[in-house]
Amino acid sequence: MAGAAEEKHFPAPTTLSPEMSASVTAAPPPLWLNGVAKPADITPIAKAYAESAAKAAIDMAARYGVKLEETTLGGVPAWVLTPANLSSEKADKIIFHIHGGGYILGHGAAGTGEAILMAAHEGYKIVSVDYRMAPEHPYPAAIDDAFKAYRALLEKVPAKNIAVFGTSTGGAMTLILGIQAAEAGVDMPAALISGTPWSDMDKVGDTYYTNEHVDNILVTYDGLIKSAVEAYAGKNDLRDPHISPVYADEKILAKFPPTLLVSGTRDLFLSNTVRMHERLLLADAHAELIVYEAISHAQYYLNEKAPETRKHYRLLGKFLERTLLK
Amino acid sequence: MAGAAEEKHFPAPTTLSPEMSASVTAAPPPLWLNGVAKPADITPIAKAYAESAAKAAIDMAARYGVKLEETTLGGVPAWVLTPANLSSEKADKIIFHIHGGGYILGHGAAGTGEAILMAAHEGYKIVSVDYRMAPEHPYPAAIDDAFKAYRALLEKVPAKNIAVFGTSTGGAMTLILGIQAAEAGVDMPAALISGTPWSDMDKVGDTYYTNEHVDNILVTYDGLIKSAVEAYAGKNDLRDPHISPVYADEKILAKFPPTLLVSGTRDLFLSNTVRMHERLLLADAHAELIVYEAISHAQYYLNEKAPETRKHYRLLGKFLERTLLK
Repeated sequence: MAGAAEEKHFPAPTTLSPEMSASVTAAPPPLWLNGVAKPADITPIAKAYAESAAKAAIDMAARYGVKLEETTLGGVPAWVLTPANLSSEKADKIIFHIHGGGYILGHGAAGTGEAILMAAHEGYKIVSVDYRMAPEHPYPAAIDDAFKAYRALLEKVPAKNIAVFGTSTGGAMTLILGIQAAEAGVDMPAALISGTPWSDMDKVGDTYYTNEHVDNILVTYDGLIKSAVEAYAGKNDLRDPHISPVYADEKILAKFPPTLLVSGTRDLFLSNTVRMHERLLLADAHAELIVYEAISHAQYYLNEKAPETRKHYRLLGKFLERTLLK
Repeated sequence: MAGAAEEKHFPAPTTLSPEMSASVTAAPPPLWLNGVAKPADITPIAKAYAESAAKAAIDMAARYGVKLEETTLGGVPAWVLTPANLSSEKADKIIFHIHGGGYILGHGAAGTGEAILMAAHEGYKIVSVDYRMAPEHPYPAAIDDAFKAYRALLEKVPAKNIAVFGTSTGGAMTLILGIQAAEAGVDMPAALISGTPWSDMDKVGDTYYTNEHVDNILVTYDGLIKSAVEAYAGKNDLRDPHISPVYADEKILAKFPPTLLVSGTRDLFLSNTVRMHERLLLADAHAELIVYEAISHAQYYLNEKAPETRKHYRLLGKFLERTLLK
């Protein structure tokens, strides 16, 4: 196994910045490679992660002049992020952010990093929902919280002024929120941005195999990803669209607003991303796709020093100009 | 080498049809794996290919009721394809098709397969340009012929009624035609469809490495692709945008009409596709991207028995409805 993995260490292409090249060629994290023995083992790991990542997020918010405040939406804890400069064009708009972390990581302020960079770079006001997670709160706690918070937001802000946005598990939850809204007949947001979504929690998808050990972030389905499936989904049907949105009914997907999907060529979730994109296209939804050169899972979104990260938020901003601001 | 290649034989995902699964798991062709020793060795191979592929194309056209007629455009030989049923909505529209084949394969009717399926499935009238190829006619004969034919077409059909379309080398030539039109101040077509374009003839692009031996069509840059580079580009600068359109100036790309790019997750040219897409997005052009699950280079476009191929032409048709027919 170690031998096979080593054969898949590719150099970074010369077209990447030195900062991103360092990420692309970094050693894969042992936690994601190996996973944990049982769901309860996740708790102390998630607690330690939440502490360090929350500190990093609070520092980052201060550096960019993004105000970070606690709130609740429909009884669900959330963060309000206000950029240093809020333009008049964006003053009545809200981005509803759903953080990633495999339904197990990102408690509290730890989940706000992506929202901070979006607020800082693209100047939007954001609410980031701090939903309950596994193993303490398995399916459907997370998606129930997110949808409850979205419905509470709708009481204050019309849907046409809201975009929903998240990456990885947050990308899947963004799609699931769209499914829930379509099913419930609740107003759809103006746009969805789903970064490299975990759209299939079952091990179905070609790049779970072809990009195994090529992706140096998630590394393999059979490590922490599998642990997260067990902790969150348990014995539930992994083909339930509320767990794996790629299985949503075409009539539901036809109701989606403009949706942007993002991935990278080395991403273990590239298949999760392109399968979802194709299902939306075939449902005649407006669906856009961006795939970044040589990038592993979500490697583009928190690498503050890399120009590729700034460029990523600019491309999200251009999509929002075509949809939320139009 | 053989061992490394064997390790990269992945099963087809269960989501593909049996017909496409057979293609996805087929043994790679020795010609593409090994290439040829010198450019002159291409000539007899290209001749034999042209004979068998032309026969297959003529049979296919007859089966679908597509009329195939020889013509010239600005002195360049071309084929006119007329579908059995031409709707009034499409009667004044023309698709200008540029075939693929590494600038070395696809002489005569051999290059018309993709155009036949487009005419048959989506009901467009098509002209397919039979441009000169290497090794007899190296760069820039091919792109000169295509541009000359396009300009001659403009004398008969307004640019707003023309879409330009091609795959692989034809996908690159489609982009290069856009560059030539922008540089010359010639009217831009209403839309471009560039399937898995050979946008970088230099060995730059992550999936030249990560999808080597994963792609069972092109297999590797270091086989027939490299032979084609030598035969066509010779000592010319591979970073010239007329050879590798991914290096085009942003001001030129900003003039592009709506452009659709298509690739697959196993495609050796996935990086060629997504790099070009990103350059167009950053230039604020309207650029769309589709990446098919588990598909190697252009594996989607001539597999008549696979439902994925029919679906592919339907997605191209939807794009043309948004651009050419709007």
